[in-house]
Amino acid sequence: MPRIKLLISYDGTDYAGWQKQADESVTAGRPTVQGTLEEALSKIFDQKIRTIASGRTDAGVHAEAQIVHFDLNGEKEITQQKLLRALNKMTPASLAVKKAWVAPDDFHALFSAEGKTYRYIMHNSPIPDAIGARYATQLDKLLDLARLNALSEPLLGVHDFKSFQTSGTDVKTTIRKIKEARWLSLGPSAPDKVEFRITGTGFLKQMVRNIVGTLIYLHQNDGTAADINRILAAKDRTQAKTTAPPEGLYLHAVYYPSDLDNRCREL
Amino acid sequence: MPRIKLLISYDGTDYAGWQKQADESVTAGRPTVQGTLEEALSKIFDQKIRTIASGRTDAGVHAEAQIVHFDLNGEKEITQQKLLRALNKMTPASLAVKKAWVAPDDFHALFSAEGKTYRYIMHNSPIPDAIGARYATQLDKLLDLARLNALSEPLLGVHDFKSFQTSGTDVKTTIRKIKEARWLSLGPSAPDKVEFRITGTGFLKQMVRNIVGTLIYLHQNDGTAADINRILAAKDRTQAKTTAPPEGLYLHAVYYPSDLDNRCREL
Repeated sequence: MPRIKLLISYDGTDYAGWQKQADESVTAGRPTVQGTLEEALSKIFDQKIRTIASGRTDAGVHAEAQIVHFDLNGEKEITQQKLLRALNKMTPASLAVKKAWVAPDDFHALFSAEGKTYRYIMHNSPIPDAIGARYATQLDKLLDLARLNALSEPLLGVHDFKSFQTSGTDVKTTIRKIKEARWLSLGPSAPDKVEFRITGTGFLKQMVRNIVGTLIYLHQNDGTAADINRILAAKDRTQAKTTAPPEGLYLHAVYYPSDLDNRCREL
Repeated sequence: MPRIKLLISYDGTDYAGWQKQADESVTAGRPTVQGTLEEALSKIFDQKIRTIASGRTDAGVHAEAQIVHFDLNGEKEITQQKLLRALNKMTPASLAVKKAWVAPDDFHALFSAEGKTYRYIMHNSPIPDAIGARYATQLDKLLDLARLNALSEPLLGVHDFKSFQTSGTDVKTTIRKIKEARWLSLGPSAPDKVEFRITGTGFLKQMVRNIVGTLIYLHQNDGTAADINRILAAKDRTQAKTTAPPEGLYLHAVYYPSDLDNRCREL
């Protein structure tokens, strides 16, 4: 009963998020990434497949590199090329399976994950970007990246991020460690694009979008780093500001312990 | 009665092409770019506006910089900022109006155009690109850009491109001059992306897609530059090969005589 690990990428626009819903009315008929992937896997392996991801993503949020695992009943001979070709033929263009491994039994996409990087991309111009509108959040008013970086500084380190958690998911602790939180320009090939990159041991529900929404609010309203410290200390969601829209957000990378990575072998 | 010139950009995926259709059954209910733009302009100026573009684009084809003109009845005081803001608010995110000028009466978006550049972008990998699937055509088999450039060489110069014209539009002549026809890699930021860039005095119906389809066919089937010469000489559509799909194609630039450009002034 081998455990299979997959690296997948998806355009979240047309999905009701990662998680399959028992009650279809929740997704208003829109497919979920998990449902779409499991349907294809179940057909290919001729058995009911249940997948586990490194974490959920909301409706509209993209993934450049989501990690998923599932268990197979019985020995199956299948090559990397055959599995990827079959999966990518069966799933819509908005979901791509990029790599497959046989993982050790103690590998778990969710519980083994030690950290993640998210990117939030903004189109910073009063003129919309018609080509790529689904891949960035538009913001008219010109952003000052130095100021945004100063505002982001207090997020680094170990903090209770309760103020930045949208309710609805039970978690043991709202304490997380943030290792990177910086704003950068995407450079001359995309002069109007600005990116916020955040890396941490884990993220609470809508935490990145709540952080981005709050940083932009403070930037537009003469806020300072002291406001971020105050919001963190309050441990109260009403102290933080709006949730930034999903279309700018990308799950960029998931990190696992190197010994686990070493014990995964490519199909 | 000033003539207004607009620079617009659109994501062609959800449009039935540029041209408004009198018979809506032709577009199967999908909007056209022209219809969407004219509806917004007519509301803003409170008069029926009819636009003319530098050329039509097919359903699914994108435009980075399409040029359009229209005539206004009576004097209207409107600033660049106000017009762009109003238009971009009224049109969907897939259509962006980027710049507006008052053009001289002898400027004509279609007839004054002296040339155009199109880009055709391919995702050259057996693994699909979920993020951006609507912006590139996927091709599994690895392309040899040096070979493609050698195959493209005979296209340069003045030729009768009848073999690369899809029927259905009357034109006075099928002779065109091609100034640039080259394949390039999009570089390390998009390692799987390959671009074909073609510049000419004008293009026949589906000419770029027919050229790309034929070049790829010859590349995969040991064709040579002599085959392109033979196809051009035949002046027969059945001698060229398949039409490449629309999602990889972008209208990149339209060129006008510099004296006309000089006499346009920004709103």
